[in-house]
Amino acid sequence: MSLLTANRPLAHLTPPSGWMSDPNGLWYDAKEGLWHCYYQYNPLNAVWDIPIYWGHAVSSCGMKWEHMGIAIKPRTDRAGVFSGSAVVDYNNSSGFFSDAVDPRQRVVALWTRNTNGNQSQMVSYSLDGGYTFEEYANNPVLDIGASNFRDPKVIWHEETRRWIMVVAMSQKFEILIYSSTNLTDWKYESSFAHQGCKGYQYECPALAKIPLLNAEGEEIKSPPESNWVMFVSISPGAPQGGSATQYFIGDFNGTTFTPTTPQARFMDWGRDFYAFQPSFNSPNGKDVLGLAWACNWQYALQVPTDNWKSSLTLMRQFHLQKHNTTQEYSELALYSSPVWNTDKLERGIMHHWDGIEVESNSVSIFNMTSGAKGLLEFSMEWSVNTAEVSKADFADLSLYFKGAMSEVEYLRLGFEANAGSFFIERDHSRINFVHENPFFTSKVAVDLSPYSISNGVATYKVRGIIDRNVIELFFNDGAMAATTTFFVSNENYIGWLEVRSSVNKVYKITDISAQQLNTITD
Amino acid sequence: MSLLTANRPLAHLTPPSGWMSDPNGLWYDAKEGLWHCYYQYNPLNAVWDIPIYWGHAVSSCGMKWEHMGIAIKPRTDRAGVFSGSAVVDYNNSSGFFSDAVDPRQRVVALWTRNTNGNQSQMVSYSLDGGYTFEEYANNPVLDIGASNFRDPKVIWHEETRRWIMVVAMSQKFEILIYSSTNLTDWKYESSFAHQGCKGYQYECPALAKIPLLNAEGEEIKSPPESNWVMFVSISPGAPQGGSATQYFIGDFNGTTFTPTTPQARFMDWGRDFYAFQPSFNSPNGKDVLGLAWACNWQYALQVPTDNWKSSLTLMRQFHLQKHNTTQEYSELALYSSPVWNTDKLERGIMHHWDGIEVESNSVSIFNMTSGAKGLLEFSMEWSVNTAEVSKADFADLSLYFKGAMSEVEYLRLGFEANAGSFFIERDHSRINFVHENPFFTSKVAVDLSPYSISNGVATYKVRGIIDRNVIELFFNDGAMAATTTFFVSNENYIGWLEVRSSVNKVYKITDISAQQLNTITD
Repeated sequence: MSLLTANRPLAHLTPPSGWMSDPNGLWYDAKEGLWHCYYQYNPLNAVWDIPIYWGHAVSSCGMKWEHMGIAIKPRTDRAGVFSGSAVVDYNNSSGFFSDAVDPRQRVVALWTRNTNGNQSQMVSYSLDGGYTFEEYANNPVLDIGASNFRDPKVIWHEETRRWIMVVAMSQKFEILIYSSTNLTDWKYESSFAHQGCKGYQYECPALAKIPLLNAEGEEIKSPPESNWVMFVSISPGAPQGGSATQYFIGDFNGTTFTPTTPQARFMDWGRDFYAFQPSFNSPNGKDVLGLAWACNWQYALQVPTDNWKSSLTLMRQFHLQKHNTTQEYSELALYSSPVWNTDKLERGIMHHWDGIEVESNSVSIFNMTSGAKGLLEFSMEWSVNTAEVSKADFADLSLYFKGAMSEVEYLRLGFEANAGSFFIERDHSRINFVHENPFFTSKVAVDLSPYSISNGVATYKVRGIIDRNVIELFFNDGAMAATTTFFVSNENYIGWLEVRSSVNKVYKITDISAQQLNTITD
Repeated sequence: MSLLTANRPLAHLTPPSGWMSDPNGLWYDAKEGLWHCYYQYNPLNAVWDIPIYWGHAVSSCGMKWEHMGIAIKPRTDRAGVFSGSAVVDYNNSSGFFSDAVDPRQRVVALWTRNTNGNQSQMVSYSLDGGYTFEEYANNPVLDIGASNFRDPKVIWHEETRRWIMVVAMSQKFEILIYSSTNLTDWKYESSFAHQGCKGYQYECPALAKIPLLNAEGEEIKSPPESNWVMFVSISPGAPQGGSATQYFIGDFNGTTFTPTTPQARFMDWGRDFYAFQPSFNSPNGKDVLGLAWACNWQYALQVPTDNWKSSLTLMRQFHLQKHNTTQEYSELALYSSPVWNTDKLERGIMHHWDGIEVESNSVSIFNMTSGAKGLLEFSMEWSVNTAEVSKADFADLSLYFKGAMSEVEYLRLGFEANAGSFFIERDHSRINFVHENPFFTSKVAVDLSPYSISNGVATYKVRGIIDRNVIELFFNDGAMAATTTFFVSNENYIGWLEVRSSVNKVYKITDISAQQLNTITD
């Protein structure tokens, strides 16, 4: 089996070498206009191990990252710098900073020290804008004698003018909420426990106030509904297998988080979206952005890449909006869209068609071999007249994204009307791992509700970004997302898009476009 | 593609011909010692369609069924007799029965009439012990002008001496609870809404008081904890894809169901367990048994069987028991075990080994070709020393159940220590459907917590029943289950069991056994 050195994603953050897992401490430097992203990092080996560090990368656009080496390391080799977050302490509430440090760069990191039998919360601060960190002298700041107590995420709660930490008692299925005025003294406030799907561990909690938009996409300034969101990752034991990230919409009063409904919801329907980390700060100071680890603990240790393993997702921006879950019920849902500006990229020819009534015996082909570097974007809007779909038929509309060098390898995406579900097939590959690993599911499904439905005609939308070995899909303007890795032979980048259907004139493609992209070399 | 006529399960209920989906109205006749099972049935075609009927089968042991034809049919061809339940009206509360009908056979069925735009609840009663039904003259008994209002499940609530119905407002995500003293006049009591994973529809709710056992397996007579369970099926939109059944443990006071925790839990980790139907009555009058549809709406219409489609699961018996979810947390969980008495079956040689330390370069083979009819049972207990597992290894213990006629076809089951997960591979098959249908996932995972753990040695148990095209697995004495269909060439029944591991002496099999079985021809 050849290891896939060449297929390292271009626009997704990967480790320079070694192992990457959870994103940590994502923050935005408003002075420099720069994103800082840290991550769980083992530079020595492309496998999780102790000691583990915070790796560090920076990016101005979120689509191309520059590696900055190790930001935080453990005091001893038998400890781990586990996951956590970063804040900007503008007002020097911690007392760590002199006036020499610009308020916009007063970065404090909160992370979990893992030793044999103990996990406790630590504080480190940076005097150089996030590149190097000093450990707070009186660490740990929070030690309750627990062995599975980790992943502090700290936010500023403007309404009560204090810091709020959410941190997981992983194997007791509790998210503990603490408050502080100085980032070092923490007071217990409440617990958010036994919510959603529990799996076998809660990890990487987060809490964020998310902008609420109306149907026209305008922000509702005085929201009548709660617009706080609690994020909880679970692994192992997600119903879809292994690792997944849940979210809960509700109200946070500075002390307690109260979900609006008791329901369980997942952020992403793919197999590879874990440990979601929202950013502290953003370019306009109020948008909520964040990213996740694009892998799954069921197979992360074995993915067939060379001397590096895993990537993060693209940065995504979030908002809450009413979603028509069914024709009888609508409710707030978490919408996401990728941070994605093609002006920052080299662009190939834009292939675009519209108004196609898809016939069963025809194949529509886009030749996109020119400029194929493994990075491309596509979008499609399609409709189906449900009354014309026979229950006895397999009624698909499929997109085959085929390798430029060999069409034996391809990603197949599609929709099947009787299942009401979108699908991703990621097993049309020459890579042994894809077939041999029993957890790397070849087929991934996203059960879709229509974007709109009128007189029995249901309309759907999908937008996708494919980056060498990871695909991110956004459905119906971001009401659902699916992130999934895939592996094909080195440099067999996607060069052909074929559109097919097994049924005649059931589907109409209102609009389809696809474009090769590449990152710009500085 | 050959259609799989010969591979019809032996011990699972399948339709004589045509289409089967949800089980309905399961009840036990204490006079005759007979189970009656009804199900959604289209006798004309192996595809879901209107009109749809209640098919009917009876069994004394629950492992072999006799077909009884159609029990309930719609008044017009454009209507459907949708899902519902049956009760035994011992005291003739309904007034339908004369003294000529034995109290143990006074069967009343409650079901949903589906017409274009309306779903309402209907009552039918049987004067011949469940074989034929009369429609109540004043039907419907419950019509609230809704188009997605279905699947009434009725129980007797002894504490308040009245009937309780749970019924789904499917696309509003509410389970409505009604009460009645006579089965025809129904009073609204409460709603259980927006709980668990919602998907795009709630279907087939059920409510049952489940025996509570202590760690020694003895029933706790005056339980200190709530032992009511609400069941809610969702389809489409289950996180694992398509259709799945959830359960909630809590308290029911005759009016309102209150879950103990807000968590979402699934009854079964396979792909094929939907529309769970608990029985009314049981041989000892207090056990709770039930069964489900062993299929998934994502691919049910396309499964490659001939003139019949789908089966139900085996009957299962349920209890609640404390489960060590993690080493730090235990809570009540729903345990299940199959109704499975091999005294009722022809038995082949029992293959049995114990104390095997599995070496990476060895293959242990059980030749089970003799007597292979596609029905067999196996069990295994294994342990793994987690400290000896390298993170860099794919550390599996695998069971290959290979075809007696051709070993090209096999089911692979196994456990991988780094993922902490059991897996099922169902794609080693010559059947095109298995590979071509994008929803028929080739790989199914069951994230397991250990049965016990001591000094880093984790022990696990699995018990499995394989019946031609369906496998039911029970882990750790029934704390988890996984039911999954699979399809191999006609009559290529399992004849070989091979045990392999990719790692040396990491696994120890304490106990393994396997046996060919067959139903006894009367």
